[in-house]
Amino acid sequence: MEPLLTKTEQEFMERAFQHAYEALAAQEVPVGCIFVHNNTEIAFGRNTVNQTKNATRHAEINCIEQVTDYCKTNNFNLIDFFKGVTVFVTVEPCIMCINALFDLQVQTIVFGCRNDRFGGRTVFDVAGVVHPKTIIKGGFRADEAMNLLKEFYKGVNPSAPPSKVKVRGKKT
Amino acid sequence: MEPLLTKTEQEFMERAFQHAYEALAAQEVPVGCIFVHNNTEIAFGRNTVNQTKNATRHAEINCIEQVTDYCKTNNFNLIDFFKGVTVFVTVEPCIMCINALFDLQVQTIVFGCRNDRFGGRTVFDVAGVVHPKTIIKGGFRADEAMNLLKEFYKGVNPSAPPSKVKVRGKKT
Repeated sequence: MEPLLTKTEQEFMERAFQHAYEALAAQEVPVGCIFVHNNTEIAFGRNTVNQTKNATRHAEINCIEQVTDYCKTNNFNLIDFFKGVTVFVTVEPCIMCINALFDLQVQTIVFGCRNDRFGGRTVFDVAGVVHPKTIIKGGFRADEAMNLLKEFYKGVNPSAPPSKVKVRGKKT
Repeated sequence: MEPLLTKTEQEFMERAFQHAYEALAAQEVPVGCIFVHNNTEIAFGRNTVNQTKNATRHAEINCIEQVTDYCKTNNFNLIDFFKGVTVFVTVEPCIMCINALFDLQVQTIVFGCRNDRFGGRTVFDVAGVVHPKTIIKGGFRADEAMNLLKEFYKGVNPSAPPSKVKVRGKKT
């Protein structure tokens, strides 16, 4: 069942989806996200792995870098700032990204579809290692987010994985 | 049992240890590492989490950034370059870092002691998710690397974790 999001949260999620669609158009894995603090969008991002040839440039990592720069420019304390950040992302963060977000102690993560191959909850629950206070809500516009991924893998990626997804771990 | 390292590999590991000792002196978690390509040291790093107030600035992440800059400056292909990189690091990389290193397809990781709290092999074997070709050798100067960590946690960190370490997963 979809989680109940406020109208404002839905609008933020819509922004994240815009970046996912943009990623698809740019032939990148279509994941989009934005980072919000005090109801203000601070960072936006999408995968740039192909563009940069750097396999770690996931949407969330790009946003983390933007927030870091933002805090430096404005002389904000990074630790305090991240504790007030909500992440809106179209796909459940992978193990690497969710570990980074937990280390940074972001307040909330709202995601779209599950990540059945690399997800930091579905494949392995990183929270069980890092014990973060982060609140996680998943499943918003999940079908749409998943369809974007399917579109990418069938369309432009010659090394498309088999369409059968493994479903492990808890439901979101 | 310690893995057999060549004299050159031992020298690179010594360099990594130098950065770990430097981290301890700077009141950072004492982990040091260097990245080597074609027997040349390309990047060196240590934890800078306290200095930067950024909990993701682990030694390996700092080195990844240096290699990225190095490739950009020299117009090298990042994907190809990382495939020839060997990482020497005093402590088993955490789940986040090892996932990043696997995504980048580094050739080899040589580490010192196990990371019983956050290790990307010991706590959870990330290789089982990412299926990298990376070769991993662990256990070199393990006691010394672990003693550095103990020194840090008893000395300067007011929120020191309990000294009892959980030992899970396979031996290195």
